[in-house]
Amino acid sequence: MKHDTYSNAARQINMTHGAGGKASAELIEEIFLKHLDNPWLRQGNDQALFEVQKGRMVMSTDGHVVSPIFFPGGNIGSLSVHGTVNDVAMSGAKPLYIALSVILEEGFPIDQLSAIVRSIAEAASEANVRIVTGDTKVVEKGSADGIFITTTGVGVVPDGLHLSVDQVRPGDAIILSGSIGDHGIAIMSKRENLEFETDILSDTASLNCLVAAMVEQCPDISCMRDPTRGGLSATLNEISRQAKVGMEVQEDAIPIKPQVRAACELLGLDPVNIANEGKLIAFCPQDQAEALVASMQQHPLGKDAAIIGQVTEDDRNMVSMKNAFGGSRIMDWLSGEQLPRIC
Amino acid sequence: MKHDTYSNAARQINMTHGAGGKASAELIEEIFLKHLDNPWLRQGNDQALFEVQKGRMVMSTDGHVVSPIFFPGGNIGSLSVHGTVNDVAMSGAKPLYIALSVILEEGFPIDQLSAIVRSIAEAASEANVRIVTGDTKVVEKGSADGIFITTTGVGVVPDGLHLSVDQVRPGDAIILSGSIGDHGIAIMSKRENLEFETDILSDTASLNCLVAAMVEQCPDISCMRDPTRGGLSATLNEISRQAKVGMEVQEDAIPIKPQVRAACELLGLDPVNIANEGKLIAFCPQDQAEALVASMQQHPLGKDAAIIGQVTEDDRNMVSMKNAFGGSRIMDWLSGEQLPRIC
Repeated sequence: MKHDTYSNAARQINMTHGAGGKASAELIEEIFLKHLDNPWLRQGNDQALFEVQKGRMVMSTDGHVVSPIFFPGGNIGSLSVHGTVNDVAMSGAKPLYIALSVILEEGFPIDQLSAIVRSIAEAASEANVRIVTGDTKVVEKGSADGIFITTTGVGVVPDGLHLSVDQVRPGDAIILSGSIGDHGIAIMSKRENLEFETDILSDTASLNCLVAAMVEQCPDISCMRDPTRGGLSATLNEISRQAKVGMEVQEDAIPIKPQVRAACELLGLDPVNIANEGKLIAFCPQDQAEALVASMQQHPLGKDAAIIGQVTEDDRNMVSMKNAFGGSRIMDWLSGEQLPRIC
Repeated sequence: MKHDTYSNAARQINMTHGAGGKASAELIEEIFLKHLDNPWLRQGNDQALFEVQKGRMVMSTDGHVVSPIFFPGGNIGSLSVHGTVNDVAMSGAKPLYIALSVILEEGFPIDQLSAIVRSIAEAASEANVRIVTGDTKVVEKGSADGIFITTTGVGVVPDGLHLSVDQVRPGDAIILSGSIGDHGIAIMSKRENLEFETDILSDTASLNCLVAAMVEQCPDISCMRDPTRGGLSATLNEISRQAKVGMEVQEDAIPIKPQVRAACELLGLDPVNIANEGKLIAFCPQDQAEALVASMQQHPLGKDAAIIGQVTEDDRNMVSMKNAFGGSRIMDWLSGEQLPRIC
C-alpha cells in the first residue's frame, strides 16, 4: 500500500496548506486528486476546459456553511454537491461540471477533510457530474468555523424546455416531490443546546435523475424549485411574489413524516418553514399534473410525490393554506429562519 | 431619491440576512441587485441561463479570503472579479459569466458590503463580464472573518488556441507581463504588527484584454499563468514540475519596482516569492517572443513586459536564476508563503 502522508488522524491543516507552495500542491495531490481524480483535474491548469454544443447552458452557485458539518444522512461534502446539482437541475438542465472552492480553518483535522472529499466524490459519481476545477484557501484559527464549501455547477438545457419562474400561471398545479422538513430536523437534532432523539435522516440527495424523468413526461412544466432555506413556505412565497400570482395549498396534502411532525411540535416549529435538501416543487398545467405525479412516484426520490395545491390569481401574491375542516390560514413567510446554517 | 434602507452606516448584517426569508430577499434586492443589475439576475431563478455556440469552454473558481479586505489599490470585491477573470483568461479564453458566492459574518457593516459589491460591479463592467447568479450565507459572529467571496467564471476559447501546461517545451521563451510583488507588498503594508510606509498599490487588474491582444498576435503561445499566491517562483516551479522541464531565468530581466525592492529588503523577503494579482507569465516559441513582447508593451497592463528566460531540458525540473555577474542560484519553491491570506 502506498504510504499516505495524510492518513494520520492527528494531522491538521496549517497555514502553509493554503499558501500556494509545496504544501498546497501536496494537499491537492494527496486529498483532492486522490478522491476526485479525472482528466480535467489531472491537466493541472487553473481552469478546466470542456467541449460544448450549440444550445442553452445554465450556471448556479451555492455556499455551504452547514453546522454541524457531519449530520445524520450526510455531511457538508455530499450536501455541497447535491445543492448545486439541484439548483442546476431545477431549470430542467442536465448538470455536467462542478467547480469546488474550499475554505479551511487552520487546525481542521485532515482525516475529516479526507472524509468530506470522499463524500464529494461519491455524490458527484452518483449524480454523474464531474468536479473539474477547484481552489483551496486556509484562514487562521478562529477566522472560520472548520470548513466552508462553495460549489458552482453548469449544465445544458434540453431543447424545448422553458422553465422559469415567470412561466408560472394561475391554474397551474403545485406538485411536491415528497415529505418536508427532514433535512432541517436532522440538523437541529444534532445542534448544541438543542439535541433531541430522532431517527430522521437528512433527505440530502441529487434530484437530476428525477428531473430528467419529469421533463421527459411533461415538457410543459412551467417552473421547478427546491425548497431549501426557509422551507416550503419561503419558496412558495418567493415564487408567488416573482410570478405575481397567489397560491392555495391543501394542508393535508403535504407529506410530513410522523417523526418530523413530532419534532416540530416539541420545538414549536411549523414544518412548512423547515429546510429540505432533496425535495422539489414543480408547477405544471392542471390537466397534466396527475400523469406527472404518477411518473414521479416511479422514482425512489419521488415516491411520495403529491399535488398539494394550485396557483391562483391574486394581486396580493398571498399563499394560503386550507385545512381538512375548510379553515384557511396564510402560509407565512418568516423574516429569517428558526435556525441559521442549515445548509 | 429613493429611500435606501441600507444606506445607514450603522446597519449590520444579522443572521436573518442569510436565512432565505424576507430579510435575505431584501438584502439581495437592495445591495446585490442594486449594483449588479442585469437580465440574468433580474429573472430571479436559482440559476442563470445563457446561449452557447459549439466550441470549447473553460471554467475556473477561486475563493477569496484576503486580509485586510480593503487595501491600497483595491478590495476583496474587485480582487474576486480580477482573480477569476484572469484564471479563465489564462487559457486564452474570453471570460463571459461569473457566479458570486458570499459568506458574511454576523455584524459585518452593511456600508462595507455595499462598497464591496459596488467594486464587484465596476470590475465586472471593466472586464466586460456579467455577474449572472449568486448566493449569500451568514454565519455567527466569530465563525468567519468579515467576508469571504468565491467567484466562478466561464468563458469561451477561440478556435485554434491550445494553451495548456503540457504544451510547454524546452526552448520556449518565458515572458513576464510586468513588475512583480506589488500586490503582496501593498497587502503587507497594511497588516497589523507589520504596517510600514509605502506608496505601492496592488496591481490587481483583469488581464483578459491583454490576453486577447496576445493570442491575436501569437496563437502559438503554449501556456499562460498568473503568478498569484507564492509569486513568480511558485508558478514557475509548479509549471516546471507539471511540464517536466527546467527553466533558466535572468534575474536582472525581472521588472521590480524600487519601492517593492526596498520593502523586500526591509522585511527580508525575496520578490520572486511575493504574490501578484495583475501579472501573467507566458510561454511561446523563442522566435516569436520579441514580437509578442512588443505587442504586449502597447497595452497599459503589459507596458513593462519582458522576456525573462527560457525553458530548458532538465530531468530534475529545476528553476535556476542567473544574476548579472554570471552567478546562478536555484529559484526556491517555498513550502508556504511569508504571509497568509494574500488573496
